[in-house]
Order: sequence, then C-alpha cells, then structure tokens
Amino acid sequence: MHLAVVLASGGLDSCVTLAMAKNQSKEIALLHASYGQRTEARELQAACAIADFYQISRRLFVPLNFLKEIGGSSLTDQERPLEEPPSPSPASPIRAGGQVPPTYVPFRNSIFLSVAVSWAEALGAREIFVGASQIDAPGYPDCRQEYFEAMGRLVEVGTRPETKIKIVTPLIDLSKAEIVKKGVELDAPLHLTWSCYQNQDLACGRCLSCRLRLEAFKEAGIKDPIPYAEEVKIS
Amino acid sequence: MHLAVVLASGGLDSCVTLAMAKNQSKEIALLHASYGQRTEARELQAACAIADFYQISRRLFVPLNFLKEIGGSSLTDQERPLEEPPSPSPASPIRAGGQVPPTYVPFRNSIFLSVAVSWAEALGAREIFVGASQIDAPGYPDCRQEYFEAMGRLVEVGTRPETKIKIVTPLIDLSKAEIVKKGVELDAPLHLTWSCYQNQDLACGRCLSCRLRLEAFKEAGIKDPIPYAEEVKIS
Repeated sequence: MHLAVVLASGGLDSCVTLAMAKNQSKEIALLHASYGQRTEARELQAACAIADFYQISRRLFVPLNFLKEIGGSSLTDQERPLEEPPSPSPASPIRAGGQVPPTYVPFRNSIFLSVAVSWAEALGAREIFVGASQIDAPGYPDCRQEYFEAMGRLVEVGTRPETKIKIVTPLIDLSKAEIVKKGVELDAPLHLTWSCYQNQDLACGRCLSCRLRLEAFKEAGIKDPIPYAEEVKIS
Repeated sequence: MHLAVVLASGGLDSCVTLAMAKNQSKEIALLHASYGQRTEARELQAACAIADFYQISRRLFVPLNFLKEIGGSSLTDQERPLEEPPSPSPASPIRAGGQVPPTYVPFRNSIFLSVAVSWAEALGAREIFVGASQIDAPGYPDCRQEYFEAMGRLVEVGTRPETKIKIVTPLIDLSKAEIVKKGVELDAPLHLTWSCYQNQDLACGRCLSCRLRLEAFKEAGIKDPIPYAEEVKIS
C-alpha cells in the first residue's frame, strides 16, 4: 500500500480529496499548515476531526505564521476587508474568472507544497494529494493546472534522483457542486469541514467562501450538514 | 532603486551574494530562515551581524523548525553522523560530484525560495538573490542551474500576472575560491560569516563545511579571518 501525503486545510475540498485518496487504498500522512489566517484555530480543529474520522495517525502540523507578517492578503491582514460580494444571481456570478481575489495569499500554495514534498521525500511517500480546483477557484494563479505542472517539474529536478513524487489534483476540473456530490458518494465527513473565512464558532453564511459552499450544496441538491449563524437565502 | 530580497544564511556564499547585490545598488530586504539545524543560533547571529554591517533594516526571520521533525538530513537529525571526510589530497578530492550528500535537507531550498517569493511579491521586490553554486555544492539537487530554471517557471505561473520576480544566482558557476576572491574584492564582511556545521563557539575546522571553506581560502591565497578551534592543516 503506497503512502500518500494529503494536504488538509479542514475545508470541504481537501476533505473530499482525502476521501478520494483513501478510496484508492492509500495509506495517508496528513499535513495541515496554519499561517496566521483569520480562522486558523477553527480550521485546525476541523483538520484534526477529519484525521480522527479516518484514523490517521501520521500527522504533521506546520505553523507558518510568518505569512501573517508578510501579509498581502485579506486572509492574513485584518485591516484588509474580506470581499463581501453582492447577492449573487445567475446573471451576475459571484466572481468573474481571471481576476486575482483579495484572499490570494502570495505564493502560499508553493510554500505548502514545498513542505509537503520535503515530508514526502523524507517519508518515502510517492504521491501528494491537493484539493485544488481551477473551476472552483478562478483567479488564483496557484490553483491552475499549469501551476501544478510547473511544480511537478520542480519536484523532479529538486529532489534526490531516486525520489519519485507525483502531485495529484483529483478536483482540478470539478466544480464545487461536483466536489460536494463526490464527497457524499464517498461518505466523506462533510459535517466536520470548515469553510467560513470570517467566524470561528458558527459559519457566517455571508463571506465569499460560505456563499460558494452554500451555492455548491444547493446546486448539488444536498443539504449542507453544518449549521450557520443565520438563515441564508441563496437565490 | 530596485528592491531585492537576499537569502542570508549567515554563511560565506550568501554574504558574498549580498555584497554583489549591494554592489548593483540594490535596496535589500534580508531573509534568514532557521530550520532546527545544529548551528541554528550561531547562523542567525552571523546573519544579523552581516545585516547590521550593511545597515539593512528590512529583515524577516523565518522559523521552519518542522524541518527538524521531518528529518531526513544529518543537518537536522543529531542521530545521523555528519560526514567526516578523510584528509583530502589533490588525488582524492573531498567529495565526488553527483552523489547527494547526507547534509541535503529534503526540498529545503524550495521552501526557502517559496517564502522569499511570497515576501518579494508582497513587498513588490523584483529580484531574489540566492548564493547557490553548482560547482561548490556538487550533488545537491536544489543547487543546480536546472533547478533554478524550474523555480523561475513556477514563480512565473504561480504569482499574480503583474508580478515579475527574477531569481538571481550570481555564484552558480563560481568555485568557492572564486567566491572568496569576489568577497574580498567587494569588501564583504567575511569575518562575520559562519560556515561550521558542528560547533557554535569556535569553528571546528574539521567538518566538511569547514574543510571546503579552508581549502577555498587557501586556493584563493587569502587568510580566513575567522578563528578555529584547532590549527588545521590543509595539505
């Protein structure tokens, strides 16, 4: 049974990715990184609950709090407003593709992936699973297929000659609704996941991340199992 | 005056690299990473002394102690012996090129560079200077020209479209003796640098890093300005 490192933020996408890795009979090493983001403690709690659910004992928690010092993102800098989109409608989608959102954290995914590669090389793991979606996250430069290809090349030339690590992105071309459906199909513990950018007790239901999540569940025809601070209407 | 991020370990190579960046009239942002290596405190002290020498106020110190937990290197794992090479001679060089040395830390340079890119993007810096030499460090996969090209591509696709950051490796094809000469030519504070892998008070003069340093000074015909724990003969 091959060992695979799974990047687990505690969110919906990485939970489904983990379920997909498990479904391929992988032995899992779970990596969670915190980086001084607003909902750091709540995300760690979610990642731990998901690791417990899957009885994963090989875990690495990585504090990267210098990313808060570096700043440049509304996720790590409390003075930058989180995007509060207007009520969405089919005619005006939440976010047009292409534009880099204010929640982009400079080169964050490369730091995460480099840590994952380091751990994978030391462990002898052959794969790294990442729950990125270029459909779900338009505008993030470090969520695109092209980006993961460049990272694959870096891993090839930047590790020992005998090290063979593949970066696997099973969600790369799935919409968030398809990710929800895939999670339900695999009995992933979606009730343990955390997506809200704003709150740490009850999900706000209003931030961009909550809205995208709620819309995805609606589109998938599935009730989101987590409670929200207020009843949110998705038109 | 362009802003450049310089990776400064506190060692000889990064000190000369910094001197070269300064010589090109760059404004410098100095990045030092510690990673649970044996001589961490001494290296930080050296990096600070070098930053003071150049009156650099923009500094970022990044603790990456999880690399000790990840292990896989004699630099971070005290139970792995540091390579103790036999006395070198022209007929038997210290290390044949090609083989990965036990001091290789899995994918470490990618973590360092990813942090540097993150900071550079947030600061608006256009260049990152790294003191890697593929001559000086044979066998390290992440010190080769090919590796830096792959990293350049990753930076291109993994940052904002308007971000243009170049990774500059001015020492890439220099031998350590040439690096010493270049440092002396630019009045780099070589007396403040630290290279020893083993000790934190007086450099041991016997570990691989000390031997390579001493040989380089000898070859350059320059006296190493730092004191050693014992008189070392370089044949």
